[in-house]
Amino acid sequence: MSGPLEFEILAKSNSTSARVGSVKTPHGSFDTPAFMPVGTRATVKGLLPEQIHATGAQIILNNAYHLMLRPGDGLIRDLGGVHAFMQWDGPILTDSGGFQAWSLADTNQFDDDGITFRSLVDGSRIHLTPERSMEVQNNLGADIIMALDDCPPSVTSSDRLKQQRPDLASAHETQIGKDHRRRLVEAVDRTTRWLERCVKSHARPETQALFGIVQGGPDEALRRRSAEQVVAMDLPGYAIGGVAVGESTEAIAATVKLTAPLLPEDRPRYLMGVGYERDLVDAVRSGVDMFDCVLPTRNGRNGGAFTSQGRIQIRNARFREDLEVIEPGCDCTACVGGFSRAYLRHLFTAGEMLGPILLSLHNIRHFERLMVDIRAAIRDDAWSSLARAWPVLDEGLVEAPGTCGEDLADATTRSAD
Amino acid sequence: MSGPLEFEILAKSNSTSARVGSVKTPHGSFDTPAFMPVGTRATVKGLLPEQIHATGAQIILNNAYHLMLRPGDGLIRDLGGVHAFMQWDGPILTDSGGFQAWSLADTNQFDDDGITFRSLVDGSRIHLTPERSMEVQNNLGADIIMALDDCPPSVTSSDRLKQQRPDLASAHETQIGKDHRRRLVEAVDRTTRWLERCVKSHARPETQALFGIVQGGPDEALRRRSAEQVVAMDLPGYAIGGVAVGESTEAIAATVKLTAPLLPEDRPRYLMGVGYERDLVDAVRSGVDMFDCVLPTRNGRNGGAFTSQGRIQIRNARFREDLEVIEPGCDCTACVGGFSRAYLRHLFTAGEMLGPILLSLHNIRHFERLMVDIRAAIRDDAWSSLARAWPVLDEGLVEAPGTCGEDLADATTRSAD
Repeated sequence: MSGPLEFEILAKSNSTSARVGSVKTPHGSFDTPAFMPVGTRATVKGLLPEQIHATGAQIILNNAYHLMLRPGDGLIRDLGGVHAFMQWDGPILTDSGGFQAWSLADTNQFDDDGITFRSLVDGSRIHLTPERSMEVQNNLGADIIMALDDCPPSVTSSDRLKQQRPDLASAHETQIGKDHRRRLVEAVDRTTRWLERCVKSHARPETQALFGIVQGGPDEALRRRSAEQVVAMDLPGYAIGGVAVGESTEAIAATVKLTAPLLPEDRPRYLMGVGYERDLVDAVRSGVDMFDCVLPTRNGRNGGAFTSQGRIQIRNARFREDLEVIEPGCDCTACVGGFSRAYLRHLFTAGEMLGPILLSLHNIRHFERLMVDIRAAIRDDAWSSLARAWPVLDEGLVEAPGTCGEDLADATTRSAD
Repeated sequence: MSGPLEFEILAKSNSTSARVGSVKTPHGSFDTPAFMPVGTRATVKGLLPEQIHATGAQIILNNAYHLMLRPGDGLIRDLGGVHAFMQWDGPILTDSGGFQAWSLADTNQFDDDGITFRSLVDGSRIHLTPERSMEVQNNLGADIIMALDDCPPSVTSSDRLKQQRPDLASAHETQIGKDHRRRLVEAVDRTTRWLERCVKSHARPETQALFGIVQGGPDEALRRRSAEQVVAMDLPGYAIGGVAVGESTEAIAATVKLTAPLLPEDRPRYLMGVGYERDLVDAVRSGVDMFDCVLPTRNGRNGGAFTSQGRIQIRNARFREDLEVIEPGCDCTACVGGFSRAYLRHLFTAGEMLGPILLSLHNIRHFERLMVDIRAAIRDDAWSSLARAWPVLDEGLVEAPGTCGEDLADATTRSAD
């Protein structure tokens, strides 16, 4: 390999911007479009590395934020890096820690130097700069590392006011909208300045591929401005950030559709923290190659099971005597193993660990199977067969009330797990 | 098979009463002496059946008490029995529910008819009779089922008084000692009457082997009386009950040594709820063939790891940078998988499920490896090589302060898991 990462496009869709590819890293290759399970604290919750492999996942994500706080990135470096630490021999991507600093800390401050927040572990004051984020990620040693970005929420306070006091909203909206746009502009330019510092301080560019992140909210002009600045850095890959921070499926799709074409065709495009099945297919059609999401594991731990027909809540009383596996025909460890919905319901009702384990295995395999089918659909340009095999891609089914428990509701699509 | 169970003795020790054997059940055979991991609620906590098999365990234990309360034995019957329910295709033993009714219920009453207690699940009043225990265990469908017994605690209140008020203890002791002996006699005779009712109401004697239980506390005469009554019933196997209910290793060994020879040589002998490595070897030398214990799984979930040298508490700060696996040379999933003590410590510190999973796998394998070595020691009458390979069998090491964390202290050896 000439650099830390090689991206090869193997097939393209005729009717969309989708492509099938392969990304080669120092720890092996992965097929794209790729779905990465989230292993926040150097473990995909409850699963052994061999079980993760068995789901078909070829690359996983770790969170730099959590690992820098505990057990510490210096310790992981001294122990041989995060691959050796968690005994995962495939590719790993680490995020920068910026999103967690923003979403998890009660009191945090963004300024041009970086982000200041309190540690969730011991309350100590942490200052995360682009340089420190690179140091952390260099210490962890993942194959793909992310630039520290400034990621403002997409939902403005005027949206909330519109719902609560529509009479006041209009006048207020103009000002809030201006404030929000100012914040988005600030985020775009700061993200670029931080990226420059990341590139400069990245100590292992020959073995770790640094991806830049495009910001700009839902605004086309801002996205264009951000993409131009970020792409100018000539990096091995690019991510679409500032998405899945509270907006609808339609808003996500719109932002992705306008942003993906702004990124160079010959580099992998990574949509951070997205999402449901339909979100993935929409993004793939816009030319996105990589995804990560906590949905399969977080929902799995709460009894939420993904099927091609839609989501089910395994705790539901209707599964009490159901001898069927989660999804007949599924080739995951839980379904092939013959564990009935009745048994899984019992495990969740009794608070037994094996329930979350089996549902996590099933749910990750669900997303990995979807990616296999998506790659086939791209090669054959067979989008209607994909839709037939995965009725959940029909929006009506995804949102059907009663198909998923309330536990699913608070599972944000982007976060650590 | 002529009955529900066949027991073949394959080798005998010359210098002790130990024997190697094989027990054939409708769901396959297991080697004896055998260690059974505890899977209280139809799951060995956190482990898939294939992972349990990989530990070398050939038979597991389920608790009738927990399963009758949730999800209900009738439901499990309707779903095809507990083997199909939990997808474990090997032999299963269920206990009667009596011990849990005694040890877990706040308010319970023993009378000649049975045990009355409040459900831990919903507070409802449960009446467990010998007939009901058989019905529950017939519904669950395990290969070996246990008679309902009356199991009084072995530690009398005078023992506690001796520690707290030695001045009052002596006079009090006589009366308490008499009361306790009266209780032990009552338990022996009631256990026999209940066993007769169990035999009479057992609906599936051709496919489920009913074991009788010998009571009698530490008293030789009472043990002899109980054994005579129970053995007269001519059952496929016998258990030594009323042990590991609070007494020392020496007291356990003494009771087992006097009770095992009272049981017929050609039937498997099962010592319920025991114990540490040394307890097992002592009991094997007295002629015991089967064991169950929550120690490997319960300690595993609390960070306690068994090694041939003694127990370690993986949360201990000294493991922070320790790249060694739990026990070098161990062939368990955790050690072969290369997971370092430092990583395991991280998982426990972060509250990650994978920690308990890996330690449970290691600890069960530890006990199963010990049984493999015990069987070899019996065949070759090589007890000193066994002691050399397992320094933990030296009592000094087992009890060494600092080798095991305080979490281990409250892990009683006999109970559900």
